[in-house]
Amino acid sequence: MEQQIQFELTKEFVDRFQQALDERDHAFIVECLQGVKAADISALLYEFNSEESKYVLDLLPLEVQAEIINDLDTDTRVKYLKVYQVNELIPIVDALHSDDVADILNELPVKEREEVLSGLNGELRTQVTELLRYEENVAGGLMAKELIKVRDHWTVVQCIDEIRKQAENVDKFYAVYVVNDRDVLVGRVSLKDLVLSDARKVVSDICERDITSVETYLSDLEVADIMRKYDLESVPVVNVQGQLVGRITIDDVVDVITEQAEEDRQLMSGISEDVEEDDSVWRNTRARLPWLLIGIVGGLMNAKFMGLFEAELSRITAIAFFIPLIQATGGNVGIQSSSLIVQSLANPGFVYDGLWTRLAKVFLVALLSGISLALLVYGANVLIFSEQKLSVIVSVALLSVVVFASFVGTITPLILNRFGFNPALASGPFITTTNDLLGLTVYFFTVHLML
Amino acid sequence: MEQQIQFELTKEFVDRFQQALDERDHAFIVECLQGVKAADISALLYEFNSEESKYVLDLLPLEVQAEIINDLDTDTRVKYLKVYQVNELIPIVDALHSDDVADILNELPVKEREEVLSGLNGELRTQVTELLRYEENVAGGLMAKELIKVRDHWTVVQCIDEIRKQAENVDKFYAVYVVNDRDVLVGRVSLKDLVLSDARKVVSDICERDITSVETYLSDLEVADIMRKYDLESVPVVNVQGQLVGRITIDDVVDVITEQAEEDRQLMSGISEDVEEDDSVWRNTRARLPWLLIGIVGGLMNAKFMGLFEAELSRITAIAFFIPLIQATGGNVGIQSSSLIVQSLANPGFVYDGLWTRLAKVFLVALLSGISLALLVYGANVLIFSEQKLSVIVSVALLSVVVFASFVGTITPLILNRFGFNPALASGPFITTTNDLLGLTVYFFTVHLML
Repeated sequence: MEQQIQFELTKEFVDRFQQALDERDHAFIVECLQGVKAADISALLYEFNSEESKYVLDLLPLEVQAEIINDLDTDTRVKYLKVYQVNELIPIVDALHSDDVADILNELPVKEREEVLSGLNGELRTQVTELLRYEENVAGGLMAKELIKVRDHWTVVQCIDEIRKQAENVDKFYAVYVVNDRDVLVGRVSLKDLVLSDARKVVSDICERDITSVETYLSDLEVADIMRKYDLESVPVVNVQGQLVGRITIDDVVDVITEQAEEDRQLMSGISEDVEEDDSVWRNTRARLPWLLIGIVGGLMNAKFMGLFEAELSRITAIAFFIPLIQATGGNVGIQSSSLIVQSLANPGFVYDGLWTRLAKVFLVALLSGISLALLVYGANVLIFSEQKLSVIVSVALLSVVVFASFVGTITPLILNRFGFNPALASGPFITTTNDLLGLTVYFFTVHLML
Repeated sequence: MEQQIQFELTKEFVDRFQQALDERDHAFIVECLQGVKAADISALLYEFNSEESKYVLDLLPLEVQAEIINDLDTDTRVKYLKVYQVNELIPIVDALHSDDVADILNELPVKEREEVLSGLNGELRTQVTELLRYEENVAGGLMAKELIKVRDHWTVVQCIDEIRKQAENVDKFYAVYVVNDRDVLVGRVSLKDLVLSDARKVVSDICERDITSVETYLSDLEVADIMRKYDLESVPVVNVQGQLVGRITIDDVVDVITEQAEEDRQLMSGISEDVEEDDSVWRNTRARLPWLLIGIVGGLMNAKFMGLFEAELSRITAIAFFIPLIQATGGNVGIQSSSLIVQSLANPGFVYDGLWTRLAKVFLVALLSGISLALLVYGANVLIFSEQKLSVIVSVALLSVVVFASFVGTITPLILNRFGFNPALASGPFITTTNDLLGLTVYFFTVHLML
């Protein structure tokens, strides 16, 4: 094996490349992209605009162009596709798998989509047309049509012959699917078993029948869970009649898992649309404002609420000093609790029953943390502020806030999940805002009662 | 294909199963676990204690036992393994792959580890011993030794013969690796190409040479990035001499990605050790206290700081009303900013250069959001509190806080990442605490200047 050439994106290289682009120095570009992997070229192209990228792509072999276009993220690709004519696009997508073609066509305006579709070769056109029927986030939208299938009554030698024919369209295959004459999925036979078996045996005798399949309407997250749980590298997709219609491979599922993690993180951090740092200023702002607004409304409500205690506040100004402490602790406890629940909800083995045992435990953890923190703060307050009475009040309020915030943080994700929302939503500004209000209420109530 | 039996964990079933366990009703247990997949049995066993689980496992075939033990998460497995004798463990791990055996042995006390190791069959023992040398989070610790390799000067027919022999130990294989006589990795040949090629051809003529491999010391996250970037379903691992020593498959990488997402979430929510909701009360408390303490210290510093402005506060109590608003907005903005940066850092194409362009953009987004929020709050304040001057002050402070918090939120993850820490740390309580202090400082400074 030749030494793996590590292609590194340095600022110097990007600048040199930009210069070559400005000068339309195609010799330099062709030379330095020689033998570089498509994924590395994609990473490089993110640094340039659509016209420049198209100039580079046009200099590359068709399959590499196709692979790069396929590799791009949706946002970038939508921009790129705008600078392409329909007749330039057709040969490119023609080199891709049906599922990738369907994804790309979904990003085109309807008119162009139809034009590209009608320009594809017959078989691919039929496959893609069928895939376009499905939503993107179900098994049908995730699957590819390219697969190797054999009939259950064929002999091993017939199968190998057929695989030879079908294999042209399928560059990676993990399994050969076995169907009956009505195309109903019967089982799977590994290439290994075919190679190692007696050539005259019938496939139905050597095929594995107890295999996991998914139906077209299953959500992508459920497909990911199933493939992860049973450690599958590919899974066949069947329609309601049990007929084999496609297959999903683990690399598609890796993308689903990665996107889910990203979505969770965005929800947790209060970003409301799928936005990336390199999107426009306007889009970035728009994605952030909704949650900030909720925080602001919460803050105004807090202000209004505190107004009720103006008398106490003006008598003992020091009450105000501890607002941030109470509020920050409530927020932190709430996020910790909801995050732990979100994590257990993500485990396939989660059982809803035993809610009371769970809450009892949450209560114990809260009590233990609350008491430790309250004692500590009491000590610190006496030392720093030497105010006996207010110190007691702050500690009592702190303990109550920890307990309340734990409950809210635990229950909110469970409720969201029950009603079909992503529970990670509860770890975000939502819980923070609720806990701010809750914390202040508890604090001022304690002040009111004890002072 | 028989209809896929969906095995569902209902409370009724778990209760019925518990009863069967209490009565040691092995007939019931054997009958109802007949044909159930190992992953489903693992999920069920999480509901019972180690002794009960062992009772169930002992009733199952050895391979199923092995698969279940392998499936469990580390914490649960450590508990389970305690109720096993060394001589019971040996046949179980003997049925597993070398990488899984190494993982399990790593969870045993040293003495038992040596005893189990010495009881394994010769080849597996050698393989596992070699794997135990590697840290768990590098390519060497992730790889399995089971793979199919052929010499570059063999003919296709020789290869198929050899694969027949080697295939017994390897149940899933994606590729056949080609090595030279010194075991140096030369390339890969797909089973498909072997099946479809002329039997007298020499392997080196049909093998793909430009393949991606990883070295044993590469970190698991880097391996995951490479496999994801180049869409690989398996990758060969080589030592510094370029010799083939193992292979990593995509299912191991799925685990790495999932664990990383979980770790990020824990860091973001301020949980300091790897803890799960069903761990003990004490462990849950211990994992949460450190970050809560940091929040408390921040809160006490806030209190001390506000003491400096006691004169202003006692003159105009309403100043205190807006502390939560300022603080919550600062916190939300900080988390949003850091989360976006963490996300771009996770993209393989991230380029450090252009820090100033990036900051300029952050500034614009902050200004745009800040001005919108400040105007809104000004309007609301005038309406609700009809206090002209304080309303202006609050809005000015709010705008400044949004800008400052955006900067801190953007820069912190970049700095953490530069020094080799997980940047997700910056989306957690760390940023929140810093922003609380920052927000109050800005607010009281504005009050002090403008009032």
